[in-house]
Amino acid sequence: MPAALDTVRIVGTGLLGTSLGQALTQAEVNVVLHDSSPSSLALAVEYGAGRAASDADQPTLVVVAVPPDVAAAVTAAELERFSGATVTDLTSVKREIVSGLRAARADLKRYVGSHPMAGRERGGAISARADLFLGQPWVISAELESAPESTDAVRQLASTVGANVIEMSSQNHDSAVAAVSHLPQIVASLTAGRLAATPEKALRLSGQGLRDTTRIAASDPELWVQILSANHQELLPLLQAFREDLDALEAALTDPAASGAMRVIASKLAAGANAVTRIPGKHGGSDRFSVLTIAIDDSPGELARLLTEIGDLGVNVEDMRLEHSPGALLGFVEISVVPEVFERATLELRALGWRLR
Amino acid sequence: MPAALDTVRIVGTGLLGTSLGQALTQAEVNVVLHDSSPSSLALAVEYGAGRAASDADQPTLVVVAVPPDVAAAVTAAELERFSGATVTDLTSVKREIVSGLRAARADLKRYVGSHPMAGRERGGAISARADLFLGQPWVISAELESAPESTDAVRQLASTVGANVIEMSSQNHDSAVAAVSHLPQIVASLTAGRLAATPEKALRLSGQGLRDTTRIAASDPELWVQILSANHQELLPLLQAFREDLDALEAALTDPAASGAMRVIASKLAAGANAVTRIPGKHGGSDRFSVLTIAIDDSPGELARLLTEIGDLGVNVEDMRLEHSPGALLGFVEISVVPEVFERATLELRALGWRLR
Repeated sequence: MPAALDTVRIVGTGLLGTSLGQALTQAEVNVVLHDSSPSSLALAVEYGAGRAASDADQPTLVVVAVPPDVAAAVTAAELERFSGATVTDLTSVKREIVSGLRAARADLKRYVGSHPMAGRERGGAISARADLFLGQPWVISAELESAPESTDAVRQLASTVGANVIEMSSQNHDSAVAAVSHLPQIVASLTAGRLAATPEKALRLSGQGLRDTTRIAASDPELWVQILSANHQELLPLLQAFREDLDALEAALTDPAASGAMRVIASKLAAGANAVTRIPGKHGGSDRFSVLTIAIDDSPGELARLLTEIGDLGVNVEDMRLEHSPGALLGFVEISVVPEVFERATLELRALGWRLR
Repeated sequence: MPAALDTVRIVGTGLLGTSLGQALTQAEVNVVLHDSSPSSLALAVEYGAGRAASDADQPTLVVVAVPPDVAAAVTAAELERFSGATVTDLTSVKREIVSGLRAARADLKRYVGSHPMAGRERGGAISARADLFLGQPWVISAELESAPESTDAVRQLASTVGANVIEMSSQNHDSAVAAVSHLPQIVASLTAGRLAATPEKALRLSGQGLRDTTRIAASDPELWVQILSANHQELLPLLQAFREDLDALEAALTDPAASGAMRVIASKLAAGANAVTRIPGKHGGSDRFSVLTIAIDDSPGELARLLTEIGDLGVNVEDMRLEHSPGALLGFVEISVVPEVFERATLELRALGWRLR
């Protein structure tokens, strides 16, 4: 274990802090935990995230995993208290923290910001999992003052829990998350909000499209108020551009038969269809996997047999999705595999009698 | 087979027409196909959707599955040509068709509108599948003039292909789809559109939330221009209400520290979080299933063994989702089961050595 991770102190034992503690403990790092709530702390200890911090602990690395509205103050206090330690925070907006630290005249040599892009709709230690960061992007934002060894320490932290390290300035980070995370959160919430008065019978017409577009609307409003407020400067121009598009669509839809109206609508839809292809896939690259679609009888035994036979072919299942309707006798399972084995898997599964689409 | 389905003529062999032809053919209905494009027609015949229509065919039921902008004219022509047949169309906006038919003085006794809520981002006969309608909502909108036997015929059509029939007026239908389908399509397209200029490195921070909120942005812009235009009257008030929410958020985010600003942001987010729980789940009822979350080693054999043992317990898998990261040694599988067996399945799987969260 690198010296930088000799003793890691985690402040805040919510979802992220507890998950990080679990992952580091599994990697045999000495983890000490602190939380302002004794019961949250006790829960995290019970969940295997580390032991409760004592006054004698001398951490080499401190991770601040507290809500955004107190993150700057807590980070400044930790920098002050542990003058030999590198300190990072996990807040999802970075520039506001840095401003707070500068205002507090904190020692920025030992500070490097973090933002692990991992979360769930459900929060708290109770939802924690050691693999939360595995394969997920983890942004590291060094400031001009940050010492190279501080950046190294945080890089080692992220690597140890299996995250994919992406280094970018706090400015670029905040601008990126405004587009890929904060604007989508707002539109999902507002789209879901429009359903408050929709008759129940109308909601029976809901399809997967609606469920997908609104899923993250279930996220914790209290946390998101803080995130959106903290990043409002990056978010505002995006919101304005979105609203201008919306205004243009609204004007065109007021009289779709008017000259040029259809072209406006088509161009907005086409722009979306083009841009959506730029989003990397679940595994970090669009189209990284090929998908086998296989018909199965609606029984767990059938799916088990399919997976056994796929395993016997030496084919690894990268992802899997069940498409099956209530009461249906037949369903489909979509199995993602690396493109290299797609052809062979198709032929061999057909030879084994499976029906592939 | 009911007499109403003696011979079904399908006009338009795109995704819906071809899928319907396949499903009816599998149910041993005599299906005759027509399309203005001879090559599309030939493809649908090859895909097992039916045979090419001849002048001698006397359909008992005609299904018009053409693009929205020509649907009214084609439906009127079919009503005129086959004076003994019931005619339905599959267009996703209903009132515009009915107005068109009234203007053409079509025989509305024999007309009943349909809207099967089934589709995919990919269109064309090539994406067709016989199970497309299975378990999906299929709206039937009878007009005042529609004869009861016409409604019966269309009801039989939908049931034969396994759809869940929902009867509502064309007005209520159009209002429902504006909220559950058309507004979500617009916001998904505009959200994706905002990513056109996002740097590639920033897009590496994309998570599942962004992928879900923008997935349907990949839908065919040409088709959607027609749908949105046709339903603009129902859509406009929703768009306006959405924009008012957006304006309020924009104003609040301009100065989040101002008095009352945080409350505005929180209330919009909370409204979305509340309303999203109203959306029925994949299986037509929210919270209809309980979810077992089980840790598994990252090997197809392990998943197969789990499913075999679940089957042996007599527990049916209603839905399944794999949560696993590339390169991870451990993943989680979320298995939906009926609530009645949740407790027993948890205990018995634990007894078998499985780790449940």
